[in-house]
Amino acid sequence: MERKRITIIGTGLIGGSLALQLNDKGMASRIIGVDANEAHAQLALELGLVDELMSLNDAIENSDIIIAAVPVDVMISLLPQVLDKIKNQVVIDLGSTKELLVAAVKNHPNRGRYVSTHPMWGTEYSGPQAAVKDAFDKKAVIICNPQESDADALEWTRNMYNKIGMHLLEMDAEAHDLHVAYISHISHITSFALANTVLEKEKEDDAIFELASAGFESTVRLAKSNAAMWVPIFMQNRENVLDVLNEHISQLKKFKSCLEKENCQYLQELIENANKINRIIK
Amino acid sequence: MERKRITIIGTGLIGGSLALQLNDKGMASRIIGVDANEAHAQLALELGLVDELMSLNDAIENSDIIIAAVPVDVMISLLPQVLDKIKNQVVIDLGSTKELLVAAVKNHPNRGRYVSTHPMWGTEYSGPQAAVKDAFDKKAVIICNPQESDADALEWTRNMYNKIGMHLLEMDAEAHDLHVAYISHISHITSFALANTVLEKEKEDDAIFELASAGFESTVRLAKSNAAMWVPIFMQNRENVLDVLNEHISQLKKFKSCLEKENCQYLQELIENANKINRIIK
Repeated sequence: MERKRITIIGTGLIGGSLALQLNDKGMASRIIGVDANEAHAQLALELGLVDELMSLNDAIENSDIIIAAVPVDVMISLLPQVLDKIKNQVVIDLGSTKELLVAAVKNHPNRGRYVSTHPMWGTEYSGPQAAVKDAFDKKAVIICNPQESDADALEWTRNMYNKIGMHLLEMDAEAHDLHVAYISHISHITSFALANTVLEKEKEDDAIFELASAGFESTVRLAKSNAAMWVPIFMQNRENVLDVLNEHISQLKKFKSCLEKENCQYLQELIENANKINRIIK
Repeated sequence: MERKRITIIGTGLIGGSLALQLNDKGMASRIIGVDANEAHAQLALELGLVDELMSLNDAIENSDIIIAAVPVDVMISLLPQVLDKIKNQVVIDLGSTKELLVAAVKNHPNRGRYVSTHPMWGTEYSGPQAAVKDAFDKKAVIICNPQESDADALEWTRNMYNKIGMHLLEMDAEAHDLHVAYISHISHITSFALANTVLEKEKEDDAIFELASAGFESTVRLAKSNAAMWVPIFMQNRENVLDVLNEHISQLKKFKSCLEKENCQYLQELIENANKINRIIK
C-alpha cells in the first residue's frame, strides 16, 4: 500500500487517534492537521499527532486523502465544501450519524470520491490530549451506502480500516442510524441521566461521593462525554433516539411496577431476560 | 494479628474472593467453607478458596470468626440462627442491604458479637469460579451501626478490612441503604432495563449484535448480574430504590422533552450538568 499524504480535519480524540494509527501502520507519508480550534491544532502538532498544520484549502490541495473527524453539525456543512474543492482526492468522514450527511451530498458531482464511515470506537474524553495509541483495534467499522462511492476510494478506505484492525460492516445510512441509536446513543443518554440523578441527590448529602463503586463507574462513565459532540448527534438522530428512549423508559417502568407491587416473580423474569445480553457482550 | 479459624458461609463471588484475601494477607489459620449449594461447595474446595467443608453447626463450633456472604433474603433468616448458636465468636455479614437485617437482630442477646458490613466491591459474575485475587483493594467498606457491636469484634473487623486495602466508612443502616440505592442499586436497574431495551429490538434485527461498542458494554455489563442476588436486594431496599428510580425516569424525560422540542440549549445544559460527575469518578 503506497504511503499517502493525508489530511485530518479535526485533530481531537477520534482524528488524533486515527492519525497515530496511520503513522504506526505506515500508511501516511505526511499527516496534515486542520483544526478550527487554534489551541487544539497547536497541541496536536506538539503531541506529534500531525506533521504540520495548514488551512483547509492548502491542506486539500496538498493531500491524497482527506479525513474529517469533526462534530456532526460541523460535518454537515463542511463535507459539501470539501467535495466542492477536491480534484480526485478521497474524502472519508468518521461521524456518528449518517442519514442526513449522506443525503446532503447525494447529488454532489464529486459524491463518488466520498466514503461514509463510522468506526465504532471512542472514549468519554475529547481533544488532542485524549488521542490514544492502538485505538480502533478489533472494533467494528460501518461503511454506509458503499454503492455511492467510487471503487478506488472504497478500496483504499477498506484497506485502511483493515490495517488498523477493524471489522468491516456495510449498510444503508438509515439502518446505521437506527442501530447506533440502540447500541451507542441510548447508552449515552442513560449515563447522562444517571449522573444527573445522582448529582441531584448530592445537593442533599455528600456521602455518596465516597462510595462510588466500580459498577457505578461503569454505568456512568459515558456521562463525562462532551456536549459539543453529543448534542448534534442526538439532534441528527432525533427520531431513532426518541423511539429507543421511549422503549427504555417503558422497560424501566416495568421494574418500577415490580417494586411497587412487590412482584418478585416478574422482577426475576425481567432480570433473567436481561442476562441474555451475555450473547452480545462476553 | 493472630491467625484465626475463619468460616465463610456462601463461597461464591464475594465470599470466595474474601477467602483468597484472608489467606493472602495471613489472617486465617484455616478457612472452613459452608454452602447450601453442594456443587458450589465442592468447587470452592477444588479451587482452593477454602481448606475444608463443614455443616453450619460444625463450622460455627470450630471457628473464631464467621463471615456470611449469602443473598440478602437468605441472610435475614440465617443471621439470627448463627447468633443463636455462637458462644463468643465474631460474626460479620457482607450483604448489600442493611436496614432490615440490623433490625432483625437488634435485640438478640448476642447482637454485640455481630458486625454489619458492606464492602463496595463486586463484579457481574457469580459463583466460586467468579472469585478473584486482589478483590476489594482500594474500595470503600461501610460498617453500619458500629455502636451496637462489641469493641473487640469491631476492632478485628476493622483490622481485616484495613489489611485487604479497604477504606472504612461508618454510618447508620438507614443511611447506608439510601446511599447504595443511588450508587449501586439504580445502576443495576438501568443496566437491566437497557439490556431489555436492546434485546426487545433484537427480535426484529440481528445486526446490532455485531456493533456493540465499548461504551455500550460499559453501560450494560451489570445486566449480566445474578437474579438470585438482586431480586432480594431490590425488595429489601424497595422504597429507596423506588425513589431513585422515579428521579431517574424524570431525568430521562427531560432528555426526551429536549428531543421532542428540538431544544438544543437545554440538552446542552443537561449534558454539561452530567459532566460534573467528573468530581466523583476520575
